[in-house]
Amino acid sequence: MSEYAVGIDLGGTNLKACLVKDGDRLVHQTSRTTEAEQGPDHVLDRIAEAIEDLRGQSPDGTIAGVGIGAPGNIDLAQRTVSYPPNFPNWDVVDMRSALQERLQDDLLVIVENDANCAGLGSAHYGIAVDHDSFIMVTLGTGVGGAIIYQNKIFRGATGAAGEIGHISIDYEGPVDRWGIAGAIEAYLGQHFLSRHARYRLLTRYESKVHDMAKDDLEDISPRMLYDAAKAGDGPAQEMLAWAGHKLGCMLGSAINLLDLATVVVGGGVSGAGDFILDPARETVMRYVMPGVRDRVQIIRETTGNEVGMLGAAHLIFQHKAQAA
Amino acid sequence: MSEYAVGIDLGGTNLKACLVKDGDRLVHQTSRTTEAEQGPDHVLDRIAEAIEDLRGQSPDGTIAGVGIGAPGNIDLAQRTVSYPPNFPNWDVVDMRSALQERLQDDLLVIVENDANCAGLGSAHYGIAVDHDSFIMVTLGTGVGGAIIYQNKIFRGATGAAGEIGHISIDYEGPVDRWGIAGAIEAYLGQHFLSRHARYRLLTRYESKVHDMAKDDLEDISPRMLYDAAKAGDGPAQEMLAWAGHKLGCMLGSAINLLDLATVVVGGGVSGAGDFILDPARETVMRYVMPGVRDRVQIIRETTGNEVGMLGAAHLIFQHKAQAA
Repeated sequence: MSEYAVGIDLGGTNLKACLVKDGDRLVHQTSRTTEAEQGPDHVLDRIAEAIEDLRGQSPDGTIAGVGIGAPGNIDLAQRTVSYPPNFPNWDVVDMRSALQERLQDDLLVIVENDANCAGLGSAHYGIAVDHDSFIMVTLGTGVGGAIIYQNKIFRGATGAAGEIGHISIDYEGPVDRWGIAGAIEAYLGQHFLSRHARYRLLTRYESKVHDMAKDDLEDISPRMLYDAAKAGDGPAQEMLAWAGHKLGCMLGSAINLLDLATVVVGGGVSGAGDFILDPARETVMRYVMPGVRDRVQIIRETTGNEVGMLGAAHLIFQHKAQAA
Repeated sequence: MSEYAVGIDLGGTNLKACLVKDGDRLVHQTSRTTEAEQGPDHVLDRIAEAIEDLRGQSPDGTIAGVGIGAPGNIDLAQRTVSYPPNFPNWDVVDMRSALQERLQDDLLVIVENDANCAGLGSAHYGIAVDHDSFIMVTLGTGVGGAIIYQNKIFRGATGAAGEIGHISIDYEGPVDRWGIAGAIEAYLGQHFLSRHARYRLLTRYESKVHDMAKDDLEDISPRMLYDAAKAGDGPAQEMLAWAGHKLGCMLGSAINLLDLATVVVGGGVSGAGDFILDPARETVMRYVMPGVRDRVQIIRETTGNEVGMLGAAHLIFQHKAQAA
């Protein structure tokens, strides 16, 4: 069987795909627009094109399979993707069958949640290669997560484990998109963070952010906060520290429950790096049990967006190893 | 190898022990005082006596091993017990070696956290026999817990996973014994629940609890709350509902993170049953993600204190099955 696998990170805007050699690293990568607004059939065609491209790059023209990291809910059998946000008219799509139909009847196709793929990628190709077990947090539009236990994804009862964004740190706190009070996503999700920042910086006229965003800070974005913080803006730094404090509270609970003391933070918002992570590192100590404190470490995934597609490819290698 | 194993539930006051036949149930049980105040050597003698008693009950006079559920921290190799609360002068004891020395050099001895044993016992002999994966919560002096995944204990990185009592539901809430703000133990641990009840019922003169506890309710106990609640006492019922509400908030976070929607509640305080669990069942729905709601069930372990020692014995059968 081929030593090569294709990994895909399916985003609402772009799909990134790579060819990976087992036990090695990335051999080739490609990227194209997802064009999600044209519906699932079109997206599946785009994915199939990317796979064909990469299959052609494999030395013998074959691949062992395709792993796909996708947003939305993934079924336990790892074939369907349901209701991915920002994919109009998607509902429930059996991606395995749809891609096999387009490419090759017996092609191994494994679908997995995108945050889980990032975690698996981090464990095998990223910053966490020396860690067997850790908590992955992805800070982006939402707050995603994964539990990596003994180098594998902990999937839970239906495949949905790792939903760290919906852990509540305050049962009377602000609500997230599911109406869960105090869910960490309601503080650190991009939209929520921007909203909190708007109110908290509204009267901090000395902040550079006032020059960056429009009147009443209505255009404020997390990106502006990092840029301002990096330029030494005190109010922006305080705002990110506020977010980091909240992250630390949540991580304390997750660490206590799982007895996993390594936390890997990835995703777009993690670009704010230590402005968020240093306060998180400080706060988390107040929320973990004393016996765990010495082991706690919060590290940043610096391999960036690659870990998602690499982790997706790794699903195929892990499947092969288990079958062998 | 013998089909029989001994399981021990080591408590600060009593030690309960049983002989179990593999694939079957409890064959014989015994109980004696732990006499923890006399120090670890004495406790180990007491345990060894109980084991000898039960080994004598085995048809051929042999056992496959001894599983022990103990409070305190258990090491990853499942041999030492560190700093169990209410065991004076204990520090760190290598129970495996100490018992092998007393009984038989190559006797298989496996030590495990008592809440984890209760979870394993519930999965194989208790209310959860039809559930492969669930969250165990033990409501007693403290709030303990376990994660049972695919019929096994999820142990985490060092063996300490399942510390549900230290999940925070309010980052500015009351502190537990480790100083963790809003930890669920700071609401539902026996001592904490009594203290909250004292303040919340102080001016509720109509409550029967005022006749049960001394002046200023200083002697109030969770037991009085259940007894009063059962007798129709409104304020006592409200107090337990308050506690159940808090439990529901915490369970929502744990369910979201683990994707395990079955919760089994055991331990002494679970005697209050539906006075706590009905409000928890109602509240938890507001804290879990929509896709999980249909699957959530909170059930009560009715096998009582037996599940701890049965689960401890099962450690031996599970070890045998893995080795085979």
